[in-house]
Amino acid sequence: MGCPTVLLLLLAFLTPGVAIRVPPAMKALSSLRWSTSFTTRHTVAKKYSIHYIQQKVDHFGFTADKTFKQRYLIADEHWKKNGGSILFYTGNEGDITWFCNNTGFMWDVADQLKAMLVFAEHRYYGESLPFGNKSFKDSRHLNFLTSEQALADFAVLIKHLKRTIPGAKNQPVIAIGGSYGGMLAAWFRMKYPHMVVGALAASAPIWHFGNLVPCGVFMEIVTKDFKRSGPNCSETIRSSWDAINRFARTGAGLRWLSEALDLCTALTNTEDVQRLKAWISETWINLAMVDYPYESDFLQPLPAWPIKVVCQYLKNPSVSDAQLLQNIFQALNVYYNYSGQASCLNISETTTSSLGTQGWSYQACTEMVMPFCTNGIDDMFEPHLWNLREFSDDCFKQWGVRPRPAWIITMYGGKNISSHTNIIFSNGELDPWSGGGVTKDITDTLVAITIPEGAHHLDLRARNAFDPTTVLLARSMEVRHMKQWIRDFYASLRKKH
Amino acid sequence: MGCPTVLLLLLAFLTPGVAIRVPPAMKALSSLRWSTSFTTRHTVAKKYSIHYIQQKVDHFGFTADKTFKQRYLIADEHWKKNGGSILFYTGNEGDITWFCNNTGFMWDVADQLKAMLVFAEHRYYGESLPFGNKSFKDSRHLNFLTSEQALADFAVLIKHLKRTIPGAKNQPVIAIGGSYGGMLAAWFRMKYPHMVVGALAASAPIWHFGNLVPCGVFMEIVTKDFKRSGPNCSETIRSSWDAINRFARTGAGLRWLSEALDLCTALTNTEDVQRLKAWISETWINLAMVDYPYESDFLQPLPAWPIKVVCQYLKNPSVSDAQLLQNIFQALNVYYNYSGQASCLNISETTTSSLGTQGWSYQACTEMVMPFCTNGIDDMFEPHLWNLREFSDDCFKQWGVRPRPAWIITMYGGKNISSHTNIIFSNGELDPWSGGGVTKDITDTLVAITIPEGAHHLDLRARNAFDPTTVLLARSMEVRHMKQWIRDFYASLRKKH
Repeated sequence: MGCPTVLLLLLAFLTPGVAIRVPPAMKALSSLRWSTSFTTRHTVAKKYSIHYIQQKVDHFGFTADKTFKQRYLIADEHWKKNGGSILFYTGNEGDITWFCNNTGFMWDVADQLKAMLVFAEHRYYGESLPFGNKSFKDSRHLNFLTSEQALADFAVLIKHLKRTIPGAKNQPVIAIGGSYGGMLAAWFRMKYPHMVVGALAASAPIWHFGNLVPCGVFMEIVTKDFKRSGPNCSETIRSSWDAINRFARTGAGLRWLSEALDLCTALTNTEDVQRLKAWISETWINLAMVDYPYESDFLQPLPAWPIKVVCQYLKNPSVSDAQLLQNIFQALNVYYNYSGQASCLNISETTTSSLGTQGWSYQACTEMVMPFCTNGIDDMFEPHLWNLREFSDDCFKQWGVRPRPAWIITMYGGKNISSHTNIIFSNGELDPWSGGGVTKDITDTLVAITIPEGAHHLDLRARNAFDPTTVLLARSMEVRHMKQWIRDFYASLRKKH
Repeated sequence: MGCPTVLLLLLAFLTPGVAIRVPPAMKALSSLRWSTSFTTRHTVAKKYSIHYIQQKVDHFGFTADKTFKQRYLIADEHWKKNGGSILFYTGNEGDITWFCNNTGFMWDVADQLKAMLVFAEHRYYGESLPFGNKSFKDSRHLNFLTSEQALADFAVLIKHLKRTIPGAKNQPVIAIGGSYGGMLAAWFRMKYPHMVVGALAASAPIWHFGNLVPCGVFMEIVTKDFKRSGPNCSETIRSSWDAINRFARTGAGLRWLSEALDLCTALTNTEDVQRLKAWISETWINLAMVDYPYESDFLQPLPAWPIKVVCQYLKNPSVSDAQLLQNIFQALNVYYNYSGQASCLNISETTTSSLGTQGWSYQACTEMVMPFCTNGIDDMFEPHLWNLREFSDDCFKQWGVRPRPAWIITMYGGKNISSHTNIIFSNGELDPWSGGGVTKDITDTLVAITIPEGAHHLDLRARNAFDPTTVLLARSMEVRHMKQWIRDFYASLRKKH
């Protein structure tokens, strides 16, 4: 499973004036980085071998000929040299071993596709650091952290695999990725169709750039998720912001809030209150992304259909401010204290400085510029405009770079991608990222698969007894397409010989 | 007309141990740069307006936000806002005004395609210098001279044109280029199919990399051109090298050679003799590229079918060494002294240091690594192996960079390009570059057009009364394809609305 990502802009937008913050998914990743024995509740550790390839730090310039070690993993238990295939995970913003262990779908289909699984780590994440521990030192060291360089790494790696692994040369490769990794999978097929016969891009918001989709779409979907999960649920959350604001007017109110919400550090000023509201918003967003039909522990240990559980506490928007916020506290506890271990809630826990986090923060400040906004009417959040200038200034302060918001569309085509072929765009309708995704067929071979009961790339997760029928259907359609690509590849190979 | 290009590797190969030399076409370009009143014999100066766009020096990195002015030309006399099209010349390694004045084909078809003509200058050539007169100072300044950066410039420019020229937004753009510019046109369609509906890639040796074609193919075609142009012509040239070598053994022989060939500077040592032979080889190569059916003055003022004229002096390989070399001298004079103005022949005239030349020399030392070889049996030259290591060392000495010979294939797909669409590869069978070109249809929409009587992108030249039927046919097929792309574009536009 890929991870819910690219929230950075959103967070910057939710906390105006506050330095750029860390996307919630990144927290999970960064803590996982230091845990060697990590497995998810529903998966067992997978068997793979670890490899490294020397990559040019700069594929697009020749001044520096410096190289670095990119890590990749191979699992070939089910691979057949005769008539097999290669499933290539286009690594995204985190440690590749974690993605490898959590993309259960690839493991589940390896046998029927006679597939070798390859998981390629994205540069600047995990162990694949171009300048070691100096990689995040400054913008000069970060200069080679772009999607284009990452795709070039993938291309060089595939060429290397085909040259060095006996039997791999004449086999079809399929790119697979989720979230940002899903965008990479799609873009890889678009830019390097000679390297992969097709791509499965799961929950890939390739249109969440520029004006391609309304900036409010993401938060509207979050809101819908809460609306459908319990009566008055989204209305209760919408009412909570003003309730917080009213308490925040006085010192006594701030103290009451700090105690009622059981915060580890008491609120003392307006900025703290902004941070609190951003932190609560993030929680609702996270829940929308991981609203899975079974217990999971992606960001936090959570019950099945966690939003439904949360909404049990949020049935009445018309109670007193104090009651309403106590109900919000109960709801937050579903997310932060399902295990019953937390002694208090820490609203600054997002500001870690781990590698994965830093990398994505830089990417969001350069290429991955995703506009977000709310109006408080079509969504349950306080109204905020998308403010590119402010975002840009924050980026400059933090990284010494400014975003180029038009670039991704220039590079990858925006909505004008119909000349490409063999890409599956899968999206869960519960997933807020689906708003920036491709949810309708573009052509016969650029197809959209939607999963009504799916959150963020549910289809890439391992099969589960509680999987809804719609995700089973989605996966079987995905496999059907992949088998077709593989057949086409071998047919064209036979024609050549 | 584009210009015969990318000879640098060839020259390095022809003159082992001699510093990297300048491709002959570049001489023409560099002198043209300083001539403001230039027009070709067969064309009149064209009417166009001159424009500039600010481009990022580095599209693929964010550390430096520096920009430079890219020049482009627009001719819109025949453009129709209603149902028109945009023909976009993907500028190659020279001053864009020269390409603009010499790509007569685009001007000839503008009316029937209701087309705006746009000629985009390639970065590091003409006036489009990222660091002004420091652009070629060292490898650090040259670091942004790559095909990828050039294609990104084109994409940004097209987006800019569509945004700023009323009526341009909903029009189809077609990429057109010759030689290296032809490669850029094809690659642009491959990498940015959302920007152009198709590409005409004339005389584009996109396969003259790695092991995609035999390294001897180029010189074999040069040889064939001489073989078909007169009895014993190629045999006489093949005999000439040993004749030169025999004379070169003694001081008296060197003096005789210098006088017999009317050299401006007398030969004094072995290295001079190597240079002489390389210079003579270049002359035969140039003639093969510009073996046009009518008088032209591309590299030099030349008669129609110049190789036939040359071969009139090269009918007998079995005469004495002295007689043979005097005949060679007569033949060389067709190329260097058709006008009767030259007082002596200058074999070092290729070593200029103009901008265009420097740019291409750097490109050949980085991305554009084209292997050449001869065996003296299938061709009329002295045998030379392709020596990458030696070439790489020369590059390092001259530019401080080393070539990456596999990169272009990784990036642009080598022979595995069948998933792309709407590219015409045109090649003249007389053109030695056709050996590295696409000369057979790959799919219904990746088509090859061959022109049996065509030299280097004859099809892109202005129409001429002496055009052979085959080039007329080629051009009409090209126009037919382009009209189809335009129709398809408008049909799909109508479907959207």
